[in-house]
Amino acid sequence: MRITEIGEFGLIDRIKEALGPPGAGVVVGIGDDVAVLRARPDRYLLATCDIQVEGIHFLKEAISPYQLGRKAAAINISDIAAMGGLPTYLLVSLALPKETTVEYVDSLYEGIITEAAGVQIVGGNMSHAPQIMIDIFLLGEVEPDHLLLRSGARPGDKVLVTGSLGRSGAGLALLLDPTVDRSGEEAKEVLEAHLTPTPRLKEGRAIARTRMATSIIDVSDGTVSDIAHICEASGVGVRLWADTLPISPATRAVAEALGQEPLEWALHAGEDYELIFTAPADKAEKLAALVKDETATPVTIIGEIVEEGMSLVLPSGESLPLEPRGWDHFRRR
Amino acid sequence: MRITEIGEFGLIDRIKEALGPPGAGVVVGIGDDVAVLRARPDRYLLATCDIQVEGIHFLKEAISPYQLGRKAAAINISDIAAMGGLPTYLLVSLALPKETTVEYVDSLYEGIITEAAGVQIVGGNMSHAPQIMIDIFLLGEVEPDHLLLRSGARPGDKVLVTGSLGRSGAGLALLLDPTVDRSGEEAKEVLEAHLTPTPRLKEGRAIARTRMATSIIDVSDGTVSDIAHICEASGVGVRLWADTLPISPATRAVAEALGQEPLEWALHAGEDYELIFTAPADKAEKLAALVKDETATPVTIIGEIVEEGMSLVLPSGESLPLEPRGWDHFRRR
Repeated sequence: MRITEIGEFGLIDRIKEALGPPGAGVVVGIGDDVAVLRARPDRYLLATCDIQVEGIHFLKEAISPYQLGRKAAAINISDIAAMGGLPTYLLVSLALPKETTVEYVDSLYEGIITEAAGVQIVGGNMSHAPQIMIDIFLLGEVEPDHLLLRSGARPGDKVLVTGSLGRSGAGLALLLDPTVDRSGEEAKEVLEAHLTPTPRLKEGRAIARTRMATSIIDVSDGTVSDIAHICEASGVGVRLWADTLPISPATRAVAEALGQEPLEWALHAGEDYELIFTAPADKAEKLAALVKDETATPVTIIGEIVEEGMSLVLPSGESLPLEPRGWDHFRRR
Repeated sequence: MRITEIGEFGLIDRIKEALGPPGAGVVVGIGDDVAVLRARPDRYLLATCDIQVEGIHFLKEAISPYQLGRKAAAINISDIAAMGGLPTYLLVSLALPKETTVEYVDSLYEGIITEAAGVQIVGGNMSHAPQIMIDIFLLGEVEPDHLLLRSGARPGDKVLVTGSLGRSGAGLALLLDPTVDRSGEEAKEVLEAHLTPTPRLKEGRAIARTRMATSIIDVSDGTVSDIAHICEASGVGVRLWADTLPISPATRAVAEALGQEPLEWALHAGEDYELIFTAPADKAEKLAALVKDETATPVTIIGEIVEEGMSLVLPSGESLPLEPRGWDHFRRR
């Protein structure tokens, strides 16, 4: 049987089963973006890794080494942010074709160092390979009572999101269509969102400190796919309100220029690295205001948790079923 | 400038410089195989990663997925062993072509799980890629007074090694020459040494507990290259005695069948994952005996630390200069 028949998440389930139940030191094991480990009484140890492969995650001619270094670090920091944690130590596993220049590697590391300010880069390894691969292993820590998981959403909870959705999808669409002018401010905003996303680290900490959130995830695979992870882990469903999804004017302008639908990007394109989280209905607005006050990042309520099923409510009142169709590395498309 | 001009280690030096001095929590940072981090008062946290790339580190047709899983885990466990530590948690970053079968992944994980008995497999990520890549991130721990480093060798110290050298080189030579018969016991021994090396975990712990060793490393790049890492970190030189190098009868038999020189493999082929360590002259024999008693693994004294330079003393008394020419991923060969 080919892995394309069961997909990335089917494969993870299979591995989970082969591994059996996690041991005593493991708070969160395989299947989540981040492992949560009992390290010392007052702190959980967090461990995560995420790879960028040339030709799969990026095209060498479309992203500078500095941007690639930043992005590779950012996507890992985002995973720690989505646990309410703080990143501490970073290891870089780098595979490079032999014709790579020293200057390319210098810029790549400059990007990692810039993005991972405050994080110690303590090791890794180097190898050669037919294409560039950068696999970052990031450790972090979180106070046990600040830890945020995917699994606590309850029916009636509101769904909140930081910043805006769909910008990274707009940036990718621009990159893939070289005929479109990219010189304007709007193009710049969405390209930057795609090439050097900002992990919502201080927002994750702020959310964790309030202890009001019931679940959280970062938008990497796609808004719907990532909310589906929350729904699965929490045993609930979700209803999103289409007209509340925060889509920036730049994203809308780029969508218009390309003749595409910005809502599609917001729901499915992923890689926005915003935080999606849930909170009881009576606390949601206060939580949104607290996070915005502390971080200056807007927070929007975009839906509510229901007993089961995933749907999108249109402004007309019509309700459409939502299917996760974001990133799965092995599914046939 | 191409990375081939400065090589893997030149590149690491450059990154080290860009990073600046390590922070307070870092006991050993970039440049070593393992990062050593202050985690809690009674334990250092160890973190390492090592990748296996299809076509670079292995050929898919020459190693089974089970063996590949075992080897990918073993080479990381070996790095923790060479610190005197114990492995604790493991993350797997896996990149696979889409035509990979589920059974292949099952066997790969069976290999990892088998080799990493006692270690918790807690996460990772999956991606697709043009070829198979398995990057393992391994955490471990060590008591601060048991930590072994590369940097403590002093002139007059003896050089010791566990097990035997050159077996993995013999195994690789057999794999690369399909015309040679591989059915005999000797072929089996060296192929196994190459395909599923045994990390010297209990030996590393036994060495650490004696607190007699002054430095240590595992043989991955090549005996001479790895001793060169000790010499560089300790600011010393080494003299190895050719006739003391432990080369197994199987390795000698395979060398004869292939018309090759087993001493060459023992010195330069690498991937034996034995531990090479140093101890003051008056403690070396006692240390060797203690480790052998506790682990049943033979330990041989193969040379001595000198003020500077690296040389090999032949049985004739003649002395040859030794040059590290083991594995450097980017050096032109």
